[in-house]
Amino acid sequence: MSDVAIIGASMTQFGKREGWVADLLAEAGEACLRDAGVAPSEVEHLYVSNMASGEFEGQTGVPNRLAHDLGALPAYTQRVDQTSSSGGAGMYAAWQSVASGASDMTLLVGGEKMTHRTTAEATDVIASLTHPVEYKHGVTLPSFAGLTARAYLEKYDAPRESLAKVAVKNHRNGVDNPNAQFRKEITVETAMESPVIADPLRLYDFCPITDGSAALMFCPVEMAEQYTDDYVTVAGIAGATDTHVVHEREDPTVMGGVVESGQQAYEMAGMGPEDIDVAELHDMFTILEFLQSEGLGFFEPGEAWLGIEEGITTRDGELPINTSGGLKSKGHPLGASGVAQGVEIYEQLMGEAGKRQVDAEVGLTCNVGGFGNCVITTVMEVGR
Amino acid sequence: MSDVAIIGASMTQFGKREGWVADLLAEAGEACLRDAGVAPSEVEHLYVSNMASGEFEGQTGVPNRLAHDLGALPAYTQRVDQTSSSGGAGMYAAWQSVASGASDMTLLVGGEKMTHRTTAEATDVIASLTHPVEYKHGVTLPSFAGLTARAYLEKYDAPRESLAKVAVKNHRNGVDNPNAQFRKEITVETAMESPVIADPLRLYDFCPITDGSAALMFCPVEMAEQYTDDYVTVAGIAGATDTHVVHEREDPTVMGGVVESGQQAYEMAGMGPEDIDVAELHDMFTILEFLQSEGLGFFEPGEAWLGIEEGITTRDGELPINTSGGLKSKGHPLGASGVAQGVEIYEQLMGEAGKRQVDAEVGLTCNVGGFGNCVITTVMEVGR
Repeated sequence: MSDVAIIGASMTQFGKREGWVADLLAEAGEACLRDAGVAPSEVEHLYVSNMASGEFEGQTGVPNRLAHDLGALPAYTQRVDQTSSSGGAGMYAAWQSVASGASDMTLLVGGEKMTHRTTAEATDVIASLTHPVEYKHGVTLPSFAGLTARAYLEKYDAPRESLAKVAVKNHRNGVDNPNAQFRKEITVETAMESPVIADPLRLYDFCPITDGSAALMFCPVEMAEQYTDDYVTVAGIAGATDTHVVHEREDPTVMGGVVESGQQAYEMAGMGPEDIDVAELHDMFTILEFLQSEGLGFFEPGEAWLGIEEGITTRDGELPINTSGGLKSKGHPLGASGVAQGVEIYEQLMGEAGKRQVDAEVGLTCNVGGFGNCVITTVMEVGR
Repeated sequence: MSDVAIIGASMTQFGKREGWVADLLAEAGEACLRDAGVAPSEVEHLYVSNMASGEFEGQTGVPNRLAHDLGALPAYTQRVDQTSSSGGAGMYAAWQSVASGASDMTLLVGGEKMTHRTTAEATDVIASLTHPVEYKHGVTLPSFAGLTARAYLEKYDAPRESLAKVAVKNHRNGVDNPNAQFRKEITVETAMESPVIADPLRLYDFCPITDGSAALMFCPVEMAEQYTDDYVTVAGIAGATDTHVVHEREDPTVMGGVVESGQQAYEMAGMGPEDIDVAELHDMFTILEFLQSEGLGFFEPGEAWLGIEEGITTRDGELPINTSGGLKSKGHPLGASGVAQGVEIYEQLMGEAGKRQVDAEVGLTCNVGGFGNCVITTVMEVGR
């Protein structure tokens, strides 16, 4: 097994974009090739993380088109779909392609084009990932989030404001991310007074519908040094699945896939939560930042809300979380999101995060599919 | 890099089936677990090859559901889509998961449910994989097949009957495959007099619309011996992409992705076309069997039609092709087809092919996405 390095990263502007997903993928892919200093002809494998170009645009075969548009033929291509965690699954696929020796230069590009559809249409496509037994009762992902948030707040006697503070923190971080969809600060009051979506959660507890793309370049560590003096290594990576029927879970405040994938990724890295300097978590809903923080061992169960109250997870705190702005303010173009988490950690570890820069040698990404149905956790480390 | 073994295989009845793709995947997955003697809890990675459950059924997140239905939690799951070559891409993903050390027991299940949609609807979903510039002019995959067949027949002065003989051969083989969609012999006359679909091709030059699923179990060779005395190894596997816009290719009778993936797979196996004893090729259209036979070096360019005329590729010939009945008579449930090719070669190498059994130590599968847009070639060999 080769040790795997990441030698380039890019993301497009997230938000409401013109064109189709193929255009966004090409934009991010070309930028990543430039960033890595890799010629298109050097790419051996090309993975595309995308949940639903067929449903959103009536267009499939997008990886083949991207290989063509980038001038990367005859590179092998494939689409990776793991619903909202397609980006993290793409990181795992790209890692496996290099670690197995199948490819010495793997480009991963994630993307989704959603805003040309109504919010109701987009929500319905996303809801198609739930089990039919829940879907037909109208339990979409926002409903799960509301139910889980209530269970968490009651179980741990946590203040509702702590969830609003997650949104405030991530919006604050997003102001300094030029590619974020929302670059405006909000207050706790704004969040607390916004319209109810799924009680007790309100508008500002939810990520938006977003268009965008992000990309990462993977190669063996021994090759990375031919391209660059500075790179990032994948120290640990793993994925795990929880029950597809959410109501079958014993405790709704514990995400089994987060716990399992985190433990496996830590074990592979020979590290633990105490070694993580910065993390990008899947804050599709504010409550998810708490559940992942606890599942990954950053906080004891029921104590993540204390972390936000005490400022531990802000940019100048002990463990900054979602310095990119998170899905909340950066946006959530399904297939791109997990890749963009990797881009943020890459930039933080490389010292390229500009105003968002924190002091970090080791970072973590946690990308969640469905309502924790599938989770991929990655531990990344500064190279030599 | 671990050497990778295949220790179990299964497929469902192909044809018109009740239920949804999730039901078919569970049926094949459970049968494969039994065939391999592996408990669901031993599965570490689970890949699902499927092109379009979202478009065909409005259902996504199918891998998560399958992990749940099989009792394989917390196995990591992911969907592999490479349009009509999703099954071959799944074999490559499963191989990489084991070879990289990420998983010691990987279950691959491919499947598609299509017959509940009209042929026009299904064709339109499939056509969404073509480049929009060709799609909007109405050039669907059957059109490409017709144009290419004419070019081939004219270039090599080959008789139209030779294509009909491919259909006759594969229908003959399908009679002895209990899981095939069509189990009836046809004559050259029947094929030659069937309705024109895309001139010069007629009804019997085309595979049908099919429901079905197939599965394979992968693990490191050193683990295989704990489960079984007999197994198959993956000697070589590779994928390659050709232009997404088909009319940009220099010579329509050469499939660049077949040539490239074949060369890479042979090189990895340390073998050549002369070492192959039996092959499953992607005969979605009869002409494709010729183009792949030539691209993989079984025949010189322009001579594959002589092979069928001389009986070389029949079951008792020197190089039997599509002993399973091929996509032509076995059926073509998109995501399942590449996996089912692997199932046939596995059964041939294990001596489990019943009436279809040929004498073989080394076999090959070639799974084609789009009109040769992406191709995965696999060389399989009898284990110890």
